[in-house]
Amino acid sequence: MNKFEFTHRRKNPLSGEWVLVSPHRNNRPWLGATEAVATEELPKHDPSCPLCPGNQRANSDTNPHYSYTHVFVNDFGALNSISPQAESSTDPLFTYDAAEGECRVICFSPDHNKTLPEMSLTELSEVITAWQQHYRELSLRYNCVQVFENKGAIMGCSQPHPHGQIWAHPHLSTEIEREDAQQSSYFQLHGRALLADYAEKEIADGSRVVFENKHWLVVVPFWAAWPFETLVLPKDELQRLDALNDAQNSALAETLKVLTTKYDNLFRCSFPYSMGWHNAPANLDSSASYWRLHAHFYPPLLRSATVKKHMVGYEMLAESQRDLTPETAASILRSASTIHYKQGNS
Amino acid sequence: MNKFEFTHRRKNPLSGEWVLVSPHRNNRPWLGATEAVATEELPKHDPSCPLCPGNQRANSDTNPHYSYTHVFVNDFGALNSISPQAESSTDPLFTYDAAEGECRVICFSPDHNKTLPEMSLTELSEVITAWQQHYRELSLRYNCVQVFENKGAIMGCSQPHPHGQIWAHPHLSTEIEREDAQQSSYFQLHGRALLADYAEKEIADGSRVVFENKHWLVVVPFWAAWPFETLVLPKDELQRLDALNDAQNSALAETLKVLTTKYDNLFRCSFPYSMGWHNAPANLDSSASYWRLHAHFYPPLLRSATVKKHMVGYEMLAESQRDLTPETAASILRSASTIHYKQGNS
Ligand SMILES: O=P(O)(O)O[C@H]1O[C@H](CO)[C@@H](O)[C@H](O)[C@H]1O
Ligand SMILES: O=P(O)(O)O[C@H]1O[C@H](CO)[C@@H](O)[C@H](O)[C@H]1O
Repeated sequence: MNKFEFTHRRKNPLSGEWVLVSPHRNNRPWLGATEAVATEELPKHDPSCPLCPGNQRANSDTNPHYSYTHVFVNDFGALNSISPQAESSTDPLFTYDAAEGECRVICFSPDHNKTLPEMSLTELSEVITAWQQHYRELSLRYNCVQVFENKGAIMGCSQPHPHGQIWAHPHLSTEIEREDAQQSSYFQLHGRALLADYAEKEIADGSRVVFENKHWLVVVPFWAAWPFETLVLPKDELQRLDALNDAQNSALAETLKVLTTKYDNLFRCSFPYSMGWHNAPANLDSSASYWRLHAHFYPPLLRSATVKKHMVGYEMLAESQRDLTPETAASILRSASTIHYKQGNS
Repeated sequence: MNKFEFTHRRKNPLSGEWVLVSPHRNNRPWLGATEAVATEELPKHDPSCPLCPGNQRANSDTNPHYSYTHVFVNDFGALNSISPQAESSTDPLFTYDAAEGECRVICFSPDHNKTLPEMSLTELSEVITAWQQHYRELSLRYNCVQVFENKGAIMGCSQPHPHGQIWAHPHLSTEIEREDAQQSSYFQLHGRALLADYAEKEIADGSRVVFENKHWLVVVPFWAAWPFETLVLPKDELQRLDALNDAQNSALAETLKVLTTKYDNLFRCSFPYSMGWHNAPANLDSSASYWRLHAHFYPPLLRSATVKKHMVGYEMLAESQRDLTPETAASILRSASTIHYKQGNS
């Protein structure tokens, strides 16, 4: 039971945006679109997959016979080196600026059919280590390094082989700029990091906690927009991915294993989402103490493997809207088993 | 050809957000999800449709035998009257507030199978008149009245019978609050309405204009995020839907007919989108001169009736990204026929 069973709005302190919560709307019958569920079992190796070990990519490079992760430059990256024709304008109605950067793809595993929840803790730890290494290298040249994963065809993922991406650029993206401003002004007002305060209060309250271990906390944030959205927060004072020590890396592997397993068990399917890490801008040195590294998971499913939440009309033109409360979503995720449904008795 | 063939970012002056433009990425092969195209021809009347004339709705009301539009209260509205348990909090990390309002559904036509581009100018005019009437009535009680349409199953539309929605509430939504702040500060700086200046400059330039008549202008905005996004702007000083006179109403009917016909002709399908009107807040009286009424069309299709743009990972975590430039999209829309493909020789 929860005390939020009336229509209300909640404010996201990281973005400054509001979310409309309509718990009574859960009872709405659904006659709209249903999504395809991927039931086909994938092979361990697919000779036509450009991400599998030993295969050729579009640019005709050959992938090495890698054992954990493999990272390469995206053959169709949205960002590349600066163009000589590049121009810019500060006209208030036609502001534009040249953009440069680098896009990389990170294969999580040599196995074509092994998603994050199906990987061992050692394998997950290697994914985190690869994120850390590439974050470290790219952040020497780029102020903003966006590590993310689109999982599932429904999330625009164009290759079934489990992989993520890293897009790096000198400018701050809209979202990072917004979170930077919000965290900075909270710090000025309260003398503490916004997400450090937030993590403490969520642990004390408990109603939105999904999982915690010594170093990490997973909550359905108070302001979640997507039905089963989660926020992964460090308990330690971490600003960026490269700063994780071995213990924090291992604890994060456990955290990702538990969270993604619970997600898959929710509707007994490979649970789609977009997830990614928000790091403090690379050029903030010691002054970055108002920042906390964190990961957002944005999964689209609402009621089953085939019915998703559509963020459309009202949501695009006004603000996000959700039906079930974040507290209900958290309690459903808490009860979901930590043993993957494909592995037996969950 | 256009001068923006290098990677760049553009700034949306209405929202303050940036968009990443990567024209070279158009060549990316697409192996990801494809969407279903609705090819099934719908009947003129469907006995099981809760929106058709004379049929029963979920709440067991019976629809009248209407001839143009029919408006009723949404049986599963996200907003309703204020709850007696309603609470609120201004805790900076857990801010929430009770929300109240009204949600209405507007059937555009008695015909189950007649979408906006297939309607006559008289019928379209009646839709606009209904928008105006309900806007007028609701804005007496609610500061923020959001008129919108989700078209197509891909846009979460749960009923194929052509219809739109109106959600009204006392608070300003996140988007309206943002556009209000941006238009107000532009006015303070330049002494002119942002969108009035913008419309003038777009007409003078021409490269992003899709259509214009005496009272209305349709452009692919300079900062468009969706591939074929458009912005409908009045040439006259209009702040709200209820202020349209007969000539402006008729000219808008023509504008909507042309725009939605071009959309359908683009990929020879019933072109999905979410669209909606942004009105000045109802409680701004004469001081609203910095505001301009406008409509946004957000269509998801990218390359064909089955391949859409996914606003996912990078877009959710960082900022919107597009491939083809707004200028290219505008020139494609300009060349699209104004005679609907179902009606013959286009
Ligand atoms: O109200 P409908 O058509 O049932 O529902 C649709 O539009 C609403 C308003 O944009 C969204 O909140 C829903 O996610 C969507 O499925
Ligand atoms: O890079 P991919 O996997 O080919 O493409 C996917 O992720 C990108 C980054 O979120 C998006 O811009 C694309 O729309 C999406 O289809």
